[in-house]
This record gives sequence, C-alpha cells and structure tokens, in this order.
Amino acid sequence: MKKADIGLVGLAVMGENLVMNMESKGFTVAVYNRTTQKVKDFVEGRARGKNIIGAYSVEELVGVLKKPRKVMLMVKAGQPVDHFIEQLLPHLEKGDIIIDGGNSHYPDTARRVKYVESKGLLYVGTGVSGGEEGALKGPSIMPGGSPQAWPYVKPIFQAISARVDGQPCCDWVGEGGAGHFVKMVHNGIEYGDMQLIAEAYLLMRDMLDMKPRDMARVFADWNKGELDSYLIEITADILAAQDSDGSPLIDKIMDTAGQKGTGKWTAIDALDEGVPLTLIAEAVFARALSSNKDLRAKASELLPGGVSAVSMDKETFLKQIQQALYASKIISYTQGYLLMQAAAQTHGWHLNYGGIALMWRGGCIIRSAFLGKIMEAYKADPDLENLLFAPYFAQAVADSLPAWRATASSAVLSGIALPAMTSALAYYDGLRAKSSGANMIQAQRDYFGAHTYERVDQPRGQFFHTNWTGEGGDTAAGNYNA
Amino acid sequence: MKKADIGLVGLAVMGENLVMNMESKGFTVAVYNRTTQKVKDFVEGRARGKNIIGAYSVEELVGVLKKPRKVMLMVKAGQPVDHFIEQLLPHLEKGDIIIDGGNSHYPDTARRVKYVESKGLLYVGTGVSGGEEGALKGPSIMPGGSPQAWPYVKPIFQAISARVDGQPCCDWVGEGGAGHFVKMVHNGIEYGDMQLIAEAYLLMRDMLDMKPRDMARVFADWNKGELDSYLIEITADILAAQDSDGSPLIDKIMDTAGQKGTGKWTAIDALDEGVPLTLIAEAVFARALSSNKDLRAKASELLPGGVSAVSMDKETFLKQIQQALYASKIISYTQGYLLMQAAAQTHGWHLNYGGIALMWRGGCIIRSAFLGKIMEAYKADPDLENLLFAPYFAQAVADSLPAWRATASSAVLSGIALPAMTSALAYYDGLRAKSSGANMIQAQRDYFGAHTYERVDQPRGQFFHTNWTGEGGDTAAGNYNA
Repeated sequence: MKKADIGLVGLAVMGENLVMNMESKGFTVAVYNRTTQKVKDFVEGRARGKNIIGAYSVEELVGVLKKPRKVMLMVKAGQPVDHFIEQLLPHLEKGDIIIDGGNSHYPDTARRVKYVESKGLLYVGTGVSGGEEGALKGPSIMPGGSPQAWPYVKPIFQAISARVDGQPCCDWVGEGGAGHFVKMVHNGIEYGDMQLIAEAYLLMRDMLDMKPRDMARVFADWNKGELDSYLIEITADILAAQDSDGSPLIDKIMDTAGQKGTGKWTAIDALDEGVPLTLIAEAVFARALSSNKDLRAKASELLPGGVSAVSMDKETFLKQIQQALYASKIISYTQGYLLMQAAAQTHGWHLNYGGIALMWRGGCIIRSAFLGKIMEAYKADPDLENLLFAPYFAQAVADSLPAWRATASSAVLSGIALPAMTSALAYYDGLRAKSSGANMIQAQRDYFGAHTYERVDQPRGQFFHTNWTGEGGDTAAGNYNA
Repeated sequence: MKKADIGLVGLAVMGENLVMNMESKGFTVAVYNRTTQKVKDFVEGRARGKNIIGAYSVEELVGVLKKPRKVMLMVKAGQPVDHFIEQLLPHLEKGDIIIDGGNSHYPDTARRVKYVESKGLLYVGTGVSGGEEGALKGPSIMPGGSPQAWPYVKPIFQAISARVDGQPCCDWVGEGGAGHFVKMVHNGIEYGDMQLIAEAYLLMRDMLDMKPRDMARVFADWNKGELDSYLIEITADILAAQDSDGSPLIDKIMDTAGQKGTGKWTAIDALDEGVPLTLIAEAVFARALSSNKDLRAKASELLPGGVSAVSMDKETFLKQIQQALYASKIISYTQGYLLMQAAAQTHGWHLNYGGIALMWRGGCIIRSAFLGKIMEAYKADPDLENLLFAPYFAQAVADSLPAWRATASSAVLSGIALPAMTSALAYYDGLRAKSSGANMIQAQRDYFGAHTYERVDQPRGQFFHTNWTGEGGDTAAGNYNA
C-alpha cells in the first residue's frame, strides 16, 4: 500500500481544503477525524479518486505515514491540541514531527515545542491564513517551532502556499511560538483593516447617504490603486451582493460583530510589551461595543448626536475618506511591526520583517499591494526602526494628512464614531510630539507617590523627587504603584 | 507587656504612614521589616514615644499580637507577598488573619485566599489608595477576601480610612480577589483621569500658549466646580511650583511617563471581559508612547503636523476644554463601571456600586465631588445599566457635547494628540449608534471564514451563511478564527 507524505487530523472546512490543496500538488495525504463518519464522507465524497487515504484511528493514521512522520493538526485551538498530542505520542518515534496548523495562542505553542522536544520528537506551530478559499488554493503559512523540522516540512508547505511573483508566501519564522505569534499579529492587523473598512463604509453610508451599489463601485475603484487588497475586494463584492428579494444584502446583516480572541490576544500582548498598539485595540473594543446591541438601542434613544459637517462635494469627500483609510492603515501596520520588534527582543527571535511582509503579501486575509511596499521598505533597511521613517510611507502619510485630519474632524463634529481612524491620528500626533503632556503625569506621580522624574536639563537615567506639599517626607518611591 | 492590635510588615513610606495613622486612632501596632535596621530607625525615630512595638523577626512580631492575630503586609506585590505568607503560616493559628495591603493583582489574591483558608486561617486582600499622604491621614480602603475576617478588621480599617460626610471610605467589597479588583479598576480610572488632565494641559500650553502660572489659576478655578477633585487640585499646585531658579518646575520635567502595571491590568481585564474600556487603554498606551522619547524626537523631525485651528477667544476655548474634560471623564467612569459589572458576573461578586463610589469619594487619588454624583446615581437606581443613562450624567454629557466635539475637532486639525478625549468621543458615538458599521465586519467574516451572521429581519440567535463566492462549499464556520 502506498504511504502518505503527511497526515492531517481534523476535517473541518480548513482541514479538508488543505488536504485537497496538498493532494493537488502531488502529495499523498492520510486523514483522520475524531468523528470518523467525517472521514468516510470525505473519502467517498470530495476526496474520491484522489491520493487521499482515510484512517479511522490515530494508530491507523500513523501507520500509513512515511518516516519521519509528519502529522498536522487542524483542530480547535486549546485543549483539543493537547489531547491529540497525547494521542499521537505513543505511536510516534524519534524525529517524527507534529504540526499544529490551528490558531493556537503562541505561549501554548512555545510550551508544546518544549514538551514534544522533551519526548525526542519535533514540533511545528504554524499560522495558516486565507480562510476556506486560501486553504484550498494557496494560503499564507507562517511556521515556527523546532528548527530541525523545517527541512522536512518546507517542501510541502512551500508547494501549497500562495505565491507572489514566483516566491512562496511561506518561510521559517523562528523558534518556539514565533510562527503562531506572527499569525496572531496578522490577525490583529486583520481586525484593524476590517474596522477601518467598516469606518469608511459608515462614512459613505451615513455622511454621504450612499447606496450599497454605489459604494461597491467606490471600493472596486479603490482596489485598483494603493488600497489594492483582498479585504477591499471582498468589500466591493459584499456591497454588490443581493438578498433573495433583490435588495442589498448588507442592509439585512445585523451590526453585531463577533470575535474569536486572536485580536484580543494581540492587544493584550501589546499592553504587556508596552507597545502602543492603539488601532488594533480600538478595533477589538469596537467589536465588543457593537455586540451590545440592546444597550446601544437604548443609548440611541437617550443620547444626542452631532451636526452634519460635510460641506464639500461627494467626490472630494470620497477622496478624503480613501486617504484617511490609507494613512490609518499605515499607522496600524507601523504599530504591528513595533509589536513584533518588541516581542522578538523579549523572546530572542530573529524575525525577518521583510520576509513576514512577503508571507502576508499573498494567500492570507490581509494580502495587499501595500505589503509589497512594506517588504521593499525592510529590504532597503532591514533595521528600519519605524515604518513611518521609510521614505515611501513618510511621503504617503504626509500626502494623506490633510484629508485624514479633515475626515476625522468631520466625523467628530457629525457624531460618526471612527475609533480606529481617530485613534491612529492621535498616535501619529503623539509620536511626532517632541514635547508631550506626559511631564504632567510624571509630576502627578511624583506628587502623590514619590515616583520621581527625569529632567530635561539633566542626563537621562537621573531621577529627581520634589517634596511638593512640604509634608510626608522626602522619601522616594513607596510601594504605591500607579 | 502590652499586646498589639495589629502587626504590619514592610516599612516603606506607605507602611510607615499607615502605622502612624493606626496609632493615632488609638491602636497599638507591632512592626517588622525584612531589613531590620528599618525597624530600629523607625521605632527610634518617627515612632518614638508612640504605641508602636518594634519586632526583629516574624516570630517576635506574631508573639506580641492579640488574638485573633491580624498581620498586614505592605510589601511589594508579587513574590514577596507569597514569601511572607509562608514565613507567617508556621507561627499563626486557626482564625488568625493575614492582610495584604499592597497592589496585588486580584487573581493572585483570589489564589491566596483559597490557599490561606485551606490552612484554617483567614485572608484579606485590600486596596489602599491615597499615596503617602492618604496612608497617613486617611486612605480609601477596599477590602475583600474571607468574609469572616471582616468583623475583626473593620474597626481598624474604618477608623483609619478617610471620611466623607461622616461616612468611612471603607467597606467590605466581596469575596476572593474582589477588593484588589476594585482597587485595580480604581488605578485604571486614575490613569484615565491623569491622561485627561495631561491633555487639557497640553491644549492650554500648545494651542493657547499659556504659561504654567496662568494654567495653575485655571485648574484652581476648575477645582471649585464640577471638576473638584484631588488630581485637579494637585495639578494647580504642580503648575504653580517653581524650580530652584524660580522658573516653572513643570517645564523642567521630562515628558516620559512611567507605569507600574495596574493600568495595564485593567485594560487587559477589559479585553478579556469584552468590555470596551477604550479611554483607560488609550491612557496606558499614551504612557508607553511617551516613554519612547528617542523615537519621538526622530519622528518630530520627520513627520509633518497640522494647522492651528483655534479661531475663538481664549476664555471660550478654555471653557470648551473644561467641558471636554468633564464629558470624557464621565465616559471613563462609565466604562470602568461596565467593567466592574462584567467582572462581578464572571466572578460571582455582589458589588455595591454606590458603595464603591463612596469608598473612592475620599482618601484616594481619584477622590472627587464627581464620585458623589455617581454614588447618588446608584443610590437612586442600584441596577443602573450604564452611568450615561442616569439623568444627571445624561444631562451633563448633553450639555458638554458641543464643546467636546469642538475641542476634539480643533485638536485633530491642529495636530495635538488627544488619545483619551477623542477615544471617549468615539465610544460615545459608537454607543449611541443605533446602526453601526459592524454589519460590514460580520459580512466579511462570513465571506472569508463562514462565520455566519444574524439578520435585522429575523429574531436574534438565528445565524445565516451566504455562499458569497459561489465556491468553497456552504459549510458554516471552519476553524479559522477571526
């Protein structure tokens, strides 16, 4: 009997589509699912006549794999991953590779790498992005974990991944949880991109009274320029889609956004790292607020709004929205890259920032022409401190700035909530503030908690305390933490 | 020899001042510090001639306490607390009480309550706020943990706490980590209040070119009205303070704000609870951004700003800033209370929201007349769903709204970063949006991940999937999480 190149556990949509993708590239794939009826349905259905072997137990699955065995888990993140690791371990041997292709939280992956390596096996935690369609036709794949596993996994992953200009959107990210970390940041950025598009849509709908059909045309048009991306493309599709009665489907969809946690993880990580990832955090909070439909309905009755503030023609305002979206998007990626830089330092990863942009350039949900520009920026300067310092992005933001400010100002006066676009602008202005208002915060902290401060006329690293009240002693820094 | 009513471990500023406070209310206090020289210095210095007993070992400390013994730890949060619990346990007996008065993270406190109770003892984790001065003259005290401990701790805590209108700013909060949780939220709100003041200061300094002396007068004036609070009061003091050469001290203080983590914990908790605590999160991120002084210096050279947008007289603009500050503050407390409500549900606490406002009303860093209004709002309606729904706050926000929008808009156009004030406004407009843009996000999630959506023309809880592309199957919800 023919042996399989790889085994896959978990036949939900993503798993099935990955298997079909692998098989189409010439690999023989063995499949297993806890509910074995799914295995039967699959091999007798979509997988019929293909080089796909159904296995009805973990033992059977392992038995049909070439060595070193590669078993990829496409199961729900969390406990199920640990469960299958335990199921697999007794049947695997030294050098075999367990791969987790789900959306695991990267600290879990770091723990599992250590654990599986302690058993003499290798472990890969990989981000796989692209949704159903990407899994089938070529996803973005972000693997990390045991470096010795990479040569065995690489031929399969780079064969099935998306390609841009002939280059695979898959490369080794780093040790431990690095792959899932980068996937997490990808998802956080995706939350930001989606929120920005929702804000642009809201501006068109509520400030310009545009119909979905007309908005669809605008997004399709934007998709031909610097905003060219998968999410802008599907937004045009969505706005053009009709309900069964021929009316715009978007108007029937309830405005309560769900979330599965990866955006939240990204924001939490940024708080822990001390990196101001404001746009993504606002995007996560905006979803939470949207889901509170009943509270919002009550608030809409009670709380007054703004006054319409659009005093320009529609085309001019649309151009402004486009520029505000683009500038805000640059801020979001700037913040995301700062988070990756901080995490790389914390975890000892040597991340290839241009390579990450290349991986995201195709296949995944955030794929865009824009990521090509980021790739070029890091190619030109691998040690780029801040994306905004790259000439292309500095110029792009400078060009968009008046429109961005005008859009944000109009929304603020009109009562349209743009948490992501306004937060991005506040970050931009905070970043470029040579002198901020934080001296007041340090003075207050020293006043009530003796936390000390640095002085502008003294070298950094020297700390001063003022006895502001003339009472309470001159002691610096109690255990009051603020 | 006279026995002590309570023992205190940890003679940093806060610990010493708490001891002096307790002694001044008629309690005899035994003190111990790991570096015993501090005990000697204290009893021969500030504590000389007072009912304060120096102990030079944990054993000695425990030996001089009345039963049931009460030992309060005022040590650094984290490992030192666990260390002293282990040090104390062998010397204590059933019914004795260990109290942690530091800034412990509430999940640690929840864990310690269980652990210490498993040894037959009682445990209290209490927030203590008010800084050095508050500890000495009357702090706000927020105790939680083993309910059986409360009757023993109450007489001491309520004697030393601040009082407002004769009522102590100390009451039992709840079981487990409830006390430290409420203190954490207090600190988060403190971050928000401080950021808002820093933003008001920045507007005066950079948009109105005001001198610190003049700003001091404005804050002193504000302190007579609805903004009457400790932080506004000390801001006036700070702005009036002179450096040794007679110039304004505030101008010499470096604008790099530090943090010790409690604001961050609050924001992380909100992300975990799914509560949009945007203002506090922005305040935490703003501190992080401010601390990146070198990056900001470089950015200030490279990135262009805005155009001055103040077209009104100074007094009018000052009045607008005041109203923007007040409205934003209302949003911050609204969000903080929503977080407490969500956490109470998660942890099974029965929080007394009016009582919490009373505890914060005096003694602590965020003490203010404003908290009296919150207390009244919850007194009038203990089940108040949202602070903005209370008539006083609904009216206050409505009155301030035009000024708030105008201030935010001016700053957005001028290039002044107001992350907290603009984020608060975006939250307000998001909350009162009957129809938000989140239907676009749900459509996108369904498009690329088959995550389904609800419909506005169907009952809640029914989920629909559209096969947007005509490919990839009709299967709903893969394991792609976004």
